[in-house]
Amino acid sequence: MQLRRILMNIVLLESQEILGKTVHLEGRRAQHIVKVLRSNPGDEIRVGCINGNIGYGVIIDTNPRQPYFVVMEISLEYSSEPPPPIDIVLALPRPIMFKRILSHTAALGVGSLYVVNASRVEKSFWDASVIQENFYRKHLVRGLEQAVDTRLPSVSFHRGFKPFVEAILPGITSDYRNLLLAHPGNQSTLSDIFSKQPGRTLLAIGPEGGWIDYEQKRMQEAGFSIFSIGPRILDVETAVTALHSMVSLLSSTTRN
Amino acid sequence: MQLRRILMNIVLLESQEILGKTVHLEGRRAQHIVKVLRSNPGDEIRVGCINGNIGYGVIIDTNPRQPYFVVMEISLEYSSEPPPPIDIVLALPRPIMFKRILSHTAALGVGSLYVVNASRVEKSFWDASVIQENFYRKHLVRGLEQAVDTRLPSVSFHRGFKPFVEAILPGITSDYRNLLLAHPGNQSTLSDIFSKQPGRTLLAIGPEGGWIDYEQKRMQEAGFSIFSIGPRILDVETAVTALHSMVSLLSSTTRN
Repeated sequence: MQLRRILMNIVLLESQEILGKTVHLEGRRAQHIVKVLRSNPGDEIRVGCINGNIGYGVIIDTNPRQPYFVVMEISLEYSSEPPPPIDIVLALPRPIMFKRILSHTAALGVGSLYVVNASRVEKSFWDASVIQENFYRKHLVRGLEQAVDTRLPSVSFHRGFKPFVEAILPGITSDYRNLLLAHPGNQSTLSDIFSKQPGRTLLAIGPEGGWIDYEQKRMQEAGFSIFSIGPRILDVETAVTALHSMVSLLSSTTRN
Repeated sequence: MQLRRILMNIVLLESQEILGKTVHLEGRRAQHIVKVLRSNPGDEIRVGCINGNIGYGVIIDTNPRQPYFVVMEISLEYSSEPPPPIDIVLALPRPIMFKRILSHTAALGVGSLYVVNASRVEKSFWDASVIQENFYRKHLVRGLEQAVDTRLPSVSFHRGFKPFVEAILPGITSDYRNLLLAHPGNQSTLSDIFSKQPGRTLLAIGPEGGWIDYEQKRMQEAGFSIFSIGPRILDVETAVTALHSMVSLLSSTTRN
């Protein structure tokens, strides 16, 4: 599969790849280390363990030609920075856009991503291979490699909007200070309704075309406040990054 | 050329396509009107004139089969919303990413986009066809069609960093309340340095890998303040949307 070109600012390892302190890499990451970083034995590079610590690796041996390989000895002493206190409810987007959104959200940092159905989600999107973990996980990892992070967002899929609202939301909404639903129109602005008291935000972003009235009503009953970012209509990909950034900025100026 | 699929939330016309009040469309926009909007004679649709007014068109005649065509009578009575008070200096990105950034910035709304050279811009990027107006303009138009706007950002290209700093910047910096340069690291945050007095912001965004020290120094001498949005490293495409959104949020809460 063609993956988007993303700068690898950290080499990420799966925990099962770490044998004692020694790691043996082949393929994409080995190629990156010898061809892009041009690392030689003795050099140090930044490495991390997915869902674990960050540190560095000292290159022991490489093959600079195909088949590329790298052997290194690693030291993972630092925990990664905590992500912004933001989780997202996202109506399942078109698959090609969803792949990019997965990388963007992992790069921007979210705790949990709840991918839900909505009236304006095309049914065929649920047949896409990207909703299977062995497909979507690599897009998340690319985002972490870009952002220098090790914490994978937790992703869950909810094919029924009503069961999500009735069975899942009631169990999690009390974890949040802000429950916010974005919708184009003339509602309140984000600054109007955002509580700057410390706490996490759960941000709900609809499909292209927006949430239907019924969905807005059910989400309001579940505690969400509706806001708009103005008259411009953004595509879902741009909206996710824009809204995450705004909430992140507001969260970073909370009263402590 | 393959163009990214963007929802056409408004049908945009070139001024020379408008003959009195009647417009005759073929191709992509005619197909959108008959196949996606499923408009029939008598229906009204939202239309606008690029760099002009917004209004509606009444469908007079269509051919719902290939070759698609649409005849409509238009009325353009409203001016489009002013864009956020933001202009951007952008180090020329990789061409495939630049196309998406052009659409994103037109959708988010900017006045001027100054595309400049920088030490970490690959020289080959300047050979890309997308820096010619007949190529890049269509990506801007797609962003306006998404966002329901008619105002094209003004785009200029500056192949020399030093001439841009020495000959262009001195003539424009006094137009801005905020001159901001984004750089990863441990500088001040955006909230720390942003002046909420009314006025425009000129936001400078570097290449993958960031501005080099010399470039930062020259931009500081030209009046720019350096800020960071934290330890996470974003790709340029995500950074443009994220930074625009944060500045837009801060600008919308200015003291009046």
